[in-house]
Amino acid sequence: MLQLTNGQWSSLYNIFSFGLISMLACTVFTLVGQSRVLPKYRSALVMSSMVTFIAGYHYFRIFNSFNESSMKQAVSVGTSQGSFNEAYRYVDWILTVPLLLVEVIAVLGLAKAASSSLINRLVPASAAMIILGYPGEISSVNSTKILFGVLSTIPFLYILYVLFVELGNSLDRQPEGVAATVGRLRLLLIATWGVYPISYLIPILVKNPTANQMASLFTDRQIGYTIADVAAKCVFGLTIFKIARMKSAAEGMADSH
Amino acid sequence: MLQLTNGQWSSLYNIFSFGLISMLACTVFTLVGQSRVLPKYRSALVMSSMVTFIAGYHYFRIFNSFNESSMKQAVSVGTSQGSFNEAYRYVDWILTVPLLLVEVIAVLGLAKAASSSLINRLVPASAAMIILGYPGEISSVNSTKILFGVLSTIPFLYILYVLFVELGNSLDRQPEGVAATVGRLRLLLIATWGVYPISYLIPILVKNPTANQMASLFTDRQIGYTIADVAAKCVFGLTIFKIARMKSAAEGMADSH
Repeated sequence: MLQLTNGQWSSLYNIFSFGLISMLACTVFTLVGQSRVLPKYRSALVMSSMVTFIAGYHYFRIFNSFNESSMKQAVSVGTSQGSFNEAYRYVDWILTVPLLLVEVIAVLGLAKAASSSLINRLVPASAAMIILGYPGEISSVNSTKILFGVLSTIPFLYILYVLFVELGNSLDRQPEGVAATVGRLRLLLIATWGVYPISYLIPILVKNPTANQMASLFTDRQIGYTIADVAAKCVFGLTIFKIARMKSAAEGMADSH
Repeated sequence: MLQLTNGQWSSLYNIFSFGLISMLACTVFTLVGQSRVLPKYRSALVMSSMVTFIAGYHYFRIFNSFNESSMKQAVSVGTSQGSFNEAYRYVDWILTVPLLLVEVIAVLGLAKAASSSLINRLVPASAAMIILGYPGEISSVNSTKILFGVLSTIPFLYILYVLFVELGNSLDRQPEGVAATVGRLRLLLIATWGVYPISYLIPILVKNPTANQMASLFTDRQIGYTIADVAAKCVFGLTIFKIARMKSAAEGMADSH
């Protein structure tokens, strides 16, 4: 059991609720916004709706799991029945992270061959990154954590290489203003994805934490993950929507839409 | 009662949740994607939405049933009130398996007479396959299990014959690339459907299992069913969507859609 203070407990309770409704509101927004972009960019919006829908479901489960696994602000952690189920995040990521990458490629509207080549490399790499992270996340042995952390970093670096080096070349062919927005999208991606390895490293870096420190670390990690998820999925999806609008306008869609 | 380890219990809890949200996300995706294919292929997409919607409902029930029938990772199995309800799967299959077959036929866009003839044979055969399997599934007598296993295999083989021999002839008339994708769809079907008879056979093949073996077999069977269901319904539905898009493009639907 992890004894949280009243403030820690209610912060988590409320931030999970914030994550949940942000995801659902974003889902409705991107679904309704479909008709405001050219048909060729709608698949990027649908991907974004799926990402936030799946994440909204998981925040609903995380919220309930947190509430039901706590009693007087003491949270039961672990993998036994009735514990706070951290694995929801990994199930979420295995579905949403590949979709997020497909979303970026779809909104760029590249030639079919170029799109397929990117998807065929990024989707398996992102799946490998998450699958390799999980054994480290659940292990309490530092050497196992470090081994899987390193293994998981290899596909992560490969994804960054593809997004920053290979994709950079295609940005020159995007309409004015779009390249800058896509640039910001990539920065958003690296800034938010950077939260996850930091969270992962915290239990390795803090030696023999006291009960109070453990409660703080748990709270900070959950808050960090939630803010990163909202940025990486909602803000990301809204940026995708903006890019799709800009490209639709550049390609002659009437401004009245 | 079946005593699972923490790892087994939480794996099942999470894979049921994964099945549930995969089905629901797929349902929204195929519903929203309707406008991106020609009207004649929309019925295939609606079938796919119905399949994943029905399966999503059943995974919601299975998830709850598993959680509520367990206490400290010990699962109550059987048919009494409060036990883990295995019958949800059969109720799901009796509805979704005939729909899946209709989905394949609908996306091929055959002549009306050919479609009707296939549906009139495949739907009753698939219903017979599932109805005949159930008495064997719930029986604890091996001779009963084998009898109904054999009876259920007859319509199964007939379905495979129709899909692989009769349908093979119509593939020559499909546009380029479509025949190959339909070929992969049939392989997906046979690979996923192959999981069910293997799961069915396990209790017959393992003699006098220990309590630990029973827990492993239960866990493996549920994981196998869930992965097979996600492949046979979600991946299958996305492949149907891809075929419908390819055929719509081949028949002159503007690429911008």
